[in-house]
Amino acid sequence: MKWLPNRHSHLTIHQQIIDWIKQRIQSGEWPIHTKLPPQRKMAEAMGVNRSTIVNAIEELVADGILSARVGDGTYVSNNSWNVLVKSNHPDWEKHISSSIYEPNFQTIQLINEYEQREDIIRLGTGELSPELLPTAALQRSLQDISLTARDIGYSEPKGSRPLRHALSRYAIQRGIHVTPDSIMIVSGALQALQLISLGLLEPGSTVFQESPSYLNSVRPFQSAGMRIISLERGERDNHWLEQIRAMKGKKQSLFYTVPTLHNPTGSIMSLEERRELLQIGAAQQIPIIEDDVYHELAFGEIPPALKSLDTSGQVLYIGSMSKTLSPGLRIGWVIAPEPVIDRLADIKMQTDYGSSAFSQQIARHWLESGLYEQHIVQLRGQLKQRADFVTGILRSRFSRIATWHEPTGGFYIWLRLHEPLVNKALFLKLMKQKVLINPGYIYDAKDFHHIRLSYAYASFEQLETGLNLLYGAIVEGT
Amino acid sequence: MKWLPNRHSHLTIHQQIIDWIKQRIQSGEWPIHTKLPPQRKMAEAMGVNRSTIVNAIEELVADGILSARVGDGTYVSNNSWNVLVKSNHPDWEKHISSSIYEPNFQTIQLINEYEQREDIIRLGTGELSPELLPTAALQRSLQDISLTARDIGYSEPKGSRPLRHALSRYAIQRGIHVTPDSIMIVSGALQALQLISLGLLEPGSTVFQESPSYLNSVRPFQSAGMRIISLERGERDNHWLEQIRAMKGKKQSLFYTVPTLHNPTGSIMSLEERRELLQIGAAQQIPIIEDDVYHELAFGEIPPALKSLDTSGQVLYIGSMSKTLSPGLRIGWVIAPEPVIDRLADIKMQTDYGSSAFSQQIARHWLESGLYEQHIVQLRGQLKQRADFVTGILRSRFSRIATWHEPTGGFYIWLRLHEPLVNKALFLKLMKQKVLINPGYIYDAKDFHHIRLSYAYASFEQLETGLNLLYGAIVEGT
Repeated sequence: MKWLPNRHSHLTIHQQIIDWIKQRIQSGEWPIHTKLPPQRKMAEAMGVNRSTIVNAIEELVADGILSARVGDGTYVSNNSWNVLVKSNHPDWEKHISSSIYEPNFQTIQLINEYEQREDIIRLGTGELSPELLPTAALQRSLQDISLTARDIGYSEPKGSRPLRHALSRYAIQRGIHVTPDSIMIVSGALQALQLISLGLLEPGSTVFQESPSYLNSVRPFQSAGMRIISLERGERDNHWLEQIRAMKGKKQSLFYTVPTLHNPTGSIMSLEERRELLQIGAAQQIPIIEDDVYHELAFGEIPPALKSLDTSGQVLYIGSMSKTLSPGLRIGWVIAPEPVIDRLADIKMQTDYGSSAFSQQIARHWLESGLYEQHIVQLRGQLKQRADFVTGILRSRFSRIATWHEPTGGFYIWLRLHEPLVNKALFLKLMKQKVLINPGYIYDAKDFHHIRLSYAYASFEQLETGLNLLYGAIVEGT
Repeated sequence: MKWLPNRHSHLTIHQQIIDWIKQRIQSGEWPIHTKLPPQRKMAEAMGVNRSTIVNAIEELVADGILSARVGDGTYVSNNSWNVLVKSNHPDWEKHISSSIYEPNFQTIQLINEYEQREDIIRLGTGELSPELLPTAALQRSLQDISLTARDIGYSEPKGSRPLRHALSRYAIQRGIHVTPDSIMIVSGALQALQLISLGLLEPGSTVFQESPSYLNSVRPFQSAGMRIISLERGERDNHWLEQIRAMKGKKQSLFYTVPTLHNPTGSIMSLEERRELLQIGAAQQIPIIEDDVYHELAFGEIPPALKSLDTSGQVLYIGSMSKTLSPGLRIGWVIAPEPVIDRLADIKMQTDYGSSAFSQQIARHWLESGLYEQHIVQLRGQLKQRADFVTGILRSRFSRIATWHEPTGGFYIWLRLHEPLVNKALFLKLMKQKVLINPGYIYDAKDFHHIRLSYAYASFEQLETGLNLLYGAIVEGT
């Protein structure tokens, strides 16, 4: 809502606001039953006194155009005036509520919404801080991109061939020997999951995942009617995988995992566990989705990718530049057996006709020129500094109330409070204090012990302030 | 398949080919039952004699790694060798065949595949010719893009705010008065349809469309289990819309239309018809999707957009830069009542986290700088020239066997043969002659009279050659 009244108009501000509201209703932007934004918010947005808004709304209520429900805001009403201009509204609300896609969890929607605000401290955001993004270098690199007409037309179903060549060379560094034909470009890892859900599964299929799991916060499978089985990772290594053995006979299933720098826990699966997972997956004929978008950000040595150990084509590998270079690029990739890639590429063509050619050219340039590697080395150092800073604060303030593991890369610390205090009330309380956290319950609905802290996004100063406020809010609650 | 044997290797070409095939099998790229590419094609791709391929394959068959089925090519076999290394393949094929998404029609898949080839004359392609794309200007403009860290992070759910501002000003030129809050950015018009199908409909919903319809060739609704009802546009104007009146009581339905420069017919709905459609839609409470991606390309005056006549928020409007600026940009937009936009934006965030920030910056720059308008004016002239050229050929060669309407803009001529000769055999025959057509039956399964000719893609020389070959193929068939 960015409209401002015109201070130089011959109309009063009061009248302009009335006209503006009427115009939105008449144009159908605000159909019948639409709830108006809070008066305070409207007043702020328009830069007027709240009383000006109150008066305008009162007049429209008197005219029967709006109706006020006590304690529940103001709505576009369904009266004769409305009936005259808009009697025949399609019932969009009905469309919305009964459609395929489940509405995103309310907490996640709130996070998405508040992340847009400048004045908020984002303690959980799984995204690089603006100061860690190579904005200037990206802008400079635009001058080195050379485009042909072919580059800016519709892309091949699997995506730009030169980019896939560059990625096949890049994959080899991760031990994954693959030809460009077995790679496809996607608009980020989430789209890969979306395409898998549309292209390789059917409603009623089973998706196994580790608990907690990033999947619970994005839900591409749940929304498409797949069954999710979460495997609790107890203390004893490997034991949790045994649960899959018991699940024999499922018609269609997949195992989704982030083996390296897990989201949200930050953990790294051992080589032994990786081998066991592959062996169990093979025995049970359960393909594995390896989400490997954080591996470049490991501070030390990491075990090989599952895909590099895969001799039977059972692993579908997902990579991305969203966590390393720029989320706005929207470039990720899938590596899988060629028939699987062909299928997913066909679905992608039916979904959005391929990813941005410009983004693909930029990604290719960064890979081929070595800019990407250079940037990653630097970024890793910066993230390590931030990780040290946050663990320093944790050690000095949180030791009494929580435990955590020393981060070994990526963005996250999976902070575990001794008490189950991480509920929606804590989330909302912190939100009021302009601190946004990612509570554990969005990754595991029954987890009220954990918070996914991210040291990647907020500034050092914000991290300190935010953690202090977090500490205060927790201690107050005990 | 871009692998080439190394002529300087100490291994023979024969041995390298064997190793290469084995490697693809071992890595799981070619799982059991994979059909190998035709020997001729492999030989061409590797730049070797066909006999070299034949020998290598024979050796692998002898080893039991491949098996040849007479008249049906060569397959990765399921024998003890394979059992050893790959016994436990997940059954990807099963995943593929039973998943939600219907495989794209075979003809459409062939078109998608052959469109990638350099040596083919594309008489039907709904895409600007490389020579009509402003490649150099786009490249130059990259230097004028200035990026902030915010621009290259994750985008707002509705897309870049400055781009939405620019689009709201652009929409006003089309008579559509809308604020940036009621606009969202999508990765092209097809993604808009995809989001509508996920976000506003449920399986069993009804989508009305004109017959023939572009929708039959992309199928975002069919694949999600929606019912499609095609309305035949007979000779008498308006009569066809009356069919909707008879359809009362459908729980959820939408009407999809391309009122301006229709795909595939190129027709323009009259103002009278537009009003009637709005009135019927309102009476039946059927929201209307207005796909308006060609309107900038009209050679003369056109009636106002349905959305500009919409006083009750019943129209969801789709625009795009794919047909005007660059398909590779992947930028389109949706204009609809705000609750609908909010809903679609939420789904988009769950699907791909927004469109490329770089593409959005480019689109914004082209709109704000006036480059876009300048380009459109020039493009329109070029398309008119091409339209005149093609109708010239049609008049001199096709008058005896076909009818068509003089194009009034856009890309297409809906050529109607007197005889129902436009079947798959004609399509394949022309494909062998390296001419690709879009037969009418991909827009209306029972239509064997029409061809969608596009004057936008092929060069003048190719248009002439292609049309001559088309004429020959048709006449031969009679």
